Amino acid sequence: MPQATVRVRVPFPDVDSTGRIHFTAMLRYMEVAEHELMRSIGFPYATALLDTAFPRVHVECDFRRAIRYDDVLTVEARIAQVGRTSWTVAFTAYSASEATVGERQNTPTSGEMVAKGRISIVAMDPATERPRPIPDELRRALTSA
Amino acid sequence: MPQATVRVRVPFPDVDSTGRIHFTAMLRYMEVAEHELMRSIGFPYATALLDTAFPRVHVECDFRRAIRYDDVLTVEARIAQVGRTSWTVAFTAYSASEATVGERQNTPTSGEMVAKGRISIVAMDPATERPRPIPDELRRALTSA
Amino acid sequence: MPQATVRVRVPFPDVDSTGRIHFTAMLRYMEVAEHELMRSIGFPYATALLDTAFPRVHVECDFRRAIRYDDVLTVEARIAQVGRTSWTVAFTAYSASEATVGERQNTPTSGEMVAKGRISIVAMDPATERPRPIPDELRRALTSA
Amino acid sequence: MPQATVRVRVPFPDVDSTGRIHFTAMLRYMEVAEHELMRSIGFPYATALLDTAFPRVHVECDFRRAIRYDDVLTVEARIAQVGRTSWTVAFTAYSASEATVGERQNTPTSGEMVAKGRISIVAMDPATERPRPIPDELRRALTSA
Repeated sequence: MPQATVRVRVPFPDVDSTGRIHFTAMLRYMEVAEHELMRSIGFPYATALLDTAFPRVHVECDFRRAIRYDDVLTVEARIAQVGRTSWTVAFTAYSASEATVGERQNTPTSGEMVAKGRISIVAMDPATERPRPIPDELRRALTSA
Repeated sequence: MPQATVRVRVPFPDVDSTGRIHFTAMLRYMEVAEHELMRSIGFPYATALLDTAFPRVHVECDFRRAIRYDDVLTVEARIAQVGRTSWTVAFTAYSASEATVGERQNTPTSGEMVAKGRISIVAMDPATERPRPIPDELRRALTSA
Repeated sequence: MPQATVRVRVPFPDVDSTGRIHFTAMLRYMEVAEHELMRSIGFPYATALLDTAFPRVHVECDFRRAIRYDDVLTVEARIAQVGRTSWTVAFTAYSASEATVGERQNTPTSGEMVAKGRISIVAMDPATERPRPIPDELRRALTSA
Repeated sequence: MPQATVRVRVPFPDVDSTGRIHFTAMLRYMEVAEHELMRSIGFPYATALLDTAFPRVHVECDFRRAIRYDDVLTVEARIAQVGRTSWTVAFTAYSASEATVGERQNTPTSGEMVAKGRISIVAMDPATERPRPIPDELRRALTSA
């Protein structure tokens, strides 16, 4: 199944007053990996399939380690399931920080999984907001080896 | 179990180029309801329990209807489960828009559920990043009638 | 000149790791007041004038006091200047917190100005991205007493 | 004077319902360049000078061209002025998109300036929230050739 990986360096405003990233930041990083995946299979969201909407219908994420400002992550996205009108992308985020910042404790080591999640997307008729079959050429791309 | 409700009017930057809110916006609205819930039981995150961290360890959300700029929502938060070191808040978001904007189609009617989700929070020792029992007085508040 | 005021309670994710709101949060609060102003003069951005784009061409803001989680602000927007193809909205944000949170020091007192700013908006032909005269009925609304 | 450049690819949620980035997104890109600049002179905000706060006291930005999803920008930050208790960073953002996306019109050509701005930062005693002289070693770094 198709997959893609992106590298993210945590920007300052993504960190909240706890000193860790806000949980929604991780979901945005995962979405960046999803967009890279779509681009890699020839369906960049920037241009493709403008007559169909692709809203998220389910999102979930488990957070394993605290992520902080300037941490570097790699986020992998892979197609996990393709149904008739929807598909699911699975994500795994790993620490890619090469060195600890200062004397900070409890920093995940490089390669350690820090979060994993899933996003389900439905092909939708934008006029009626009802699901429709995934367009054939998109289905072929989503299920390619 | 404790619960709280907030009213949210969708601000302009929460809407992405699809004309609908970005999925992370709904999660932020749910968090506003969670914070109101904590305030209502005497544990506002602004002041309480500074020696314990409360990171989210699991987040999930199902999206039922498209939400757009200036839509008004009510978001309910209620304590769904309280364990030894963690608890779960369940959320339901409803449309509260009294009238359609312009001639827009497919607007959810007032009172219609538009999303539901869950957030699990763990009590954590900030020095070791390990779970610790929920402090007693917080447990009592979370489980009050 | 038209004006409008909104009340904002600072949500948790707007606060960064310094314990104060990120500077872009104040600009978003000002924009909420601008949108309320447009709504009050009969030109809600949700529906009005879809054949013209209204990008911001200049933004500035002075920050006077630190703003923190759960602080309550009132933000005033008023039309400051109306030109041929653009107009400027001026903003003033005041503390509206009725009480200090905990024993926090250096909290602005209620009514104290905490920030002021300006946003200039241009009427633009979306096809050519060139300025065009402000549509007549919008001009009348922007300059009404 | 010190300077630094970063490359930004516009992520999906930064684009609002107009199809262009929300104006606050550009300010966040500029801040990424500022943080890179601080890192390059040996004062990464992640570790340096924890007994002094560095809030922004003034921000301004002029927007010249519409920026859209997946556009690539280079953002330059340079120290523009260093005073006794504050300094100013000047920013210029350029289009770095190598090709137009689809048949999109009005795309800035590569190398074209799309925005410029300034951010002024004050050295502040966090306890009193009063300005204090910029620490000597930071001053030396900010004014190095």
